[in-house]
Amino acid sequence: MAKITLVTGGARSGKSCYALSLAQNYRRKRVFIATAEAFDQEMRLRIDKHRKERGNRFFTIEEPYDPAAALARLPAGSQVVVIDCLTVWLGNLIHRYDDKQPESYPEIEALANALRVLPCDAILVSNEVGMGIVPHNESARRFRDLAGQLNQQVAGLAERVVLMVSGIPLTLK
Amino acid sequence: MAKITLVTGGARSGKSCYALSLAQNYRRKRVFIATAEAFDQEMRLRIDKHRKERGNRFFTIEEPYDPAAALARLPAGSQVVVIDCLTVWLGNLIHRYDDKQPESYPEIEALANALRVLPCDAILVSNEVGMGIVPHNESARRFRDLAGQLNQQVAGLAERVVLMVSGIPLTLK
Amino acid sequence: MAKITLVTGGARSGKSCYALSLAQNYRRKRVFIATAEAFDQEMRLRIDKHRKERGNRFFTIEEPYDPAAALARLPAGSQVVVIDCLTVWLGNLIHRYDDKQPESYPEIEALANALRVLPCDAILVSNEVGMGIVPHNESARRFRDLAGQLNQQVAGLAERVVLMVSGIPLTLK
Repeated sequence: MAKITLVTGGARSGKSCYALSLAQNYRRKRVFIATAEAFDQEMRLRIDKHRKERGNRFFTIEEPYDPAAALARLPAGSQVVVIDCLTVWLGNLIHRYDDKQPESYPEIEALANALRVLPCDAILVSNEVGMGIVPHNESARRFRDLAGQLNQQVAGLAERVVLMVSGIPLTLK
Repeated sequence: MAKITLVTGGARSGKSCYALSLAQNYRRKRVFIATAEAFDQEMRLRIDKHRKERGNRFFTIEEPYDPAAALARLPAGSQVVVIDCLTVWLGNLIHRYDDKQPESYPEIEALANALRVLPCDAILVSNEVGMGIVPHNESARRFRDLAGQLNQQVAGLAERVVLMVSGIPLTLK
Repeated sequence: MAKITLVTGGARSGKSCYALSLAQNYRRKRVFIATAEAFDQEMRLRIDKHRKERGNRFFTIEEPYDPAAALARLPAGSQVVVIDCLTVWLGNLIHRYDDKQPESYPEIEALANALRVLPCDAILVSNEVGMGIVPHNESARRFRDLAGQLNQQVAGLAERVVLMVSGIPLTLK
């Protein structure tokens, strides 16, 4: 049975760094699914910088909208896949649906299904975004609700859940 | 001595669900104090939906401004009362006082007093709202300060304090 | 070797109070570095009120921009120093640099260096500010990023890291 780990926490709490260090414990065939979208030159440079930092330690797939589809095209023999990160992906999704937000998002359901039949271990990175003031903006509230629900769903499937605070991993499960 | 439990956490972290599951451990006479106010049709539908979900497992009291008053009218023989939630209540309170915010809120003091002489166990649901950026809005800052102070006060009285993160309870006390 | 403790948490979570109580365990020569700036009369009154509350239990240094400089002028024989707090200091720093934000801040580097050669134990208070929605404001995002990075850096140097939630200390390290 494939093992799922969720690494969550606030901004700049060391989530990605910790997720990568966990993945390094696997000896070979590590995959990195990047959900950030290169919508401008600055973002392109940033994504390329991170890709260069990972070097040949990871095979990278860029997939801003449909991580389940990315999981379906993992290279044969993959030992571990890192998805970084869920909240950036949700932001992309909400942005794409624009003023036609569905009752339920097929991409989210697809990910939940894909996580149940994973061909290898997975480490998912997410953000805690619900511990501030309720945002005025309706779209921000939708995002916050979706992120919280998704985190609960993934945490429910995960064998291990870690909250990062100031760079320190706190094991919740 | 009545036992107080505080369940706190971010938005959509599974607080209410966990509080209800704790209350289900009591065999009978469970009361639910709902602090949400049905100020429009959408809210009315939502409150009614939640009430229907709880079904006859809970006796519901709606009290948006004065939970201490609601505690004073618990049905005889109540075994456990859930108050859901403190931050929605504080928001209602601040909204009601409008531009005449008092130095200290009698309703908050009344709740603190009521918790010291509870006739049955209580499970209080609250929100962590202070882990984001300082809000520009003066009223939001006041809300944030009050919520933090109230959480500290209730946690001080509580036998057990639980922080929900991604649906997972983390026992703080 | 001097011992560093980081006390972090949300607004009104009891951080300062807990940091002061830790410092009280030292028998004498306690120093308090206050980073809040008295930019108006209200702030002046607030700072003076806190100073009065600490009374003669602490020797106070006010230093809104350069805590490393304050550490360099600790009274001889100091046993413990509290720095309260890092995020207010970062806010002052960003405000001062205005539209000339540097790539890296010499004051932050200076603090990191000073913490490595401390003449006495130190208790640093900081805020978790990254668990809400991404702020629209560019300056707020910069602040959030800096605060997260600084918290990671200090936590890395610290022997003990505590997250305050609702007034309850949760030891992370």
